[in-house]
Amino acid sequence: MIDLYTSATPNGWKASITLEEMGVPYKLHAISLSKQDQKTPEFLKINPNGRIPAIVDDGFAVFESGAIMIYLAEKFGKLMPSDVKGRSQVIQWLMFQMGGIGPMQGQANVFYRYAPEKIPFAINRYQTETRRLYTVLESRLKDNEYLAGDYSIADIANWSWVSLHEWAGVEVEGLPGVQRWLKAIAERPAVKRGIVVPEPLVLSGGGADDTKKMAQSILVTGDKKD
Amino acid sequence: MIDLYTSATPNGWKASITLEEMGVPYKLHAISLSKQDQKTPEFLKINPNGRIPAIVDDGFAVFESGAIMIYLAEKFGKLMPSDVKGRSQVIQWLMFQMGGIGPMQGQANVFYRYAPEKIPFAINRYQTETRRLYTVLESRLKDNEYLAGDYSIADIANWSWVSLHEWAGVEVEGLPGVQRWLKAIAERPAVKRGIVVPEPLVLSGGGADDTKKMAQSILVTGDKKD
Repeated sequence: MIDLYTSATPNGWKASITLEEMGVPYKLHAISLSKQDQKTPEFLKINPNGRIPAIVDDGFAVFESGAIMIYLAEKFGKLMPSDVKGRSQVIQWLMFQMGGIGPMQGQANVFYRYAPEKIPFAINRYQTETRRLYTVLESRLKDNEYLAGDYSIADIANWSWVSLHEWAGVEVEGLPGVQRWLKAIAERPAVKRGIVVPEPLVLSGGGADDTKKMAQSILVTGDKKD
Repeated sequence: MIDLYTSATPNGWKASITLEEMGVPYKLHAISLSKQDQKTPEFLKINPNGRIPAIVDDGFAVFESGAIMIYLAEKFGKLMPSDVKGRSQVIQWLMFQMGGIGPMQGQANVFYRYAPEKIPFAINRYQTETRRLYTVLESRLKDNEYLAGDYSIADIANWSWVSLHEWAGVEVEGLPGVQRWLKAIAERPAVKRGIVVPEPLVLSGGGADDTKKMAQSILVTGDKKD
């Protein structure tokens, strides 16, 4: 049995959608970021980095969302081809999300939504870079249904971030391939199930304020916590 | 034959050190970042993201430094174990670098070294987070010679960044395991060869100014290029 430790965030979605797509049973452990569940000694034994998501598969802990996806894809033989080239292409686009879309869009969120001061240089930098990365996705998606052959963990990883582009203040206007791909993946039943694990992520109405406050409570500012 | 397209940067080192450690022949193509070689139509066919490093193995292009490392480790059966758990642990610590150390230390470089204005919030944020990530490495390295079993691509990936900690203004004081590991890896002959490919990275004396100017020339500021 797989234990999943997660919260309602894009990185959390990467794990929960992957598990839902694979149709394997898992035991859910909701981690409260605002209560700092991810920094408890028990959780740090699973992930020394104190971040969600993490899984434990029959006693074996796996942290880092990208590593979880590769582990599950290999274990269950799904969502990643087994031939050398096909597999590498999936890993390349997964790494593109891990090192590019995720961190850059994440910093756009920080400076556009959470930071205590408005810093135009930083907001512009991260929104511009995130948009540029979206145009790289478009160069692929304008002629291809998915990023790397068939629907794969690379699509799930990138979709989990790009689908939340509005929260980062970044548009997908003028990127018809990205728009088509966003919509197609959003309609998948497993994706619909995955994005409410452990609870829906609310980014509009009154709930958006709670989401913002939670993010601000764990923000790394250099003058205290985390 | 493997073609390597690279520049003197931490991400470039990840590929060049890995190739040197494996002892496989490769053809070097030096990419000038200041001349924007990485944005030419020819190079974008290899890496649509317009970034170094990239490799082409007998016509098959691989981009993203982390994906290159996994591809080479699997192709040559070196620097990553083949058993499921050992392999996953290497990938977990590689992802930790891809999504954590690399982007966060990279942003520390930007705000500490390259940005046109000094923004204390941003400098503190990225230096604090980078130092926190180093303490996560320490939690592993205080009791283990390497990050994930034997010396692996996970060590090369993290070392390529952490060894340049001074440039980011982040210390490794009080982290004896990290210091020991930094020194041990620096002494490896293949590492010494890898870090001068395609040329040495100069971060002190007059050369540091050139490095800074090059980085500033490709900085994403939101008001023009890239």
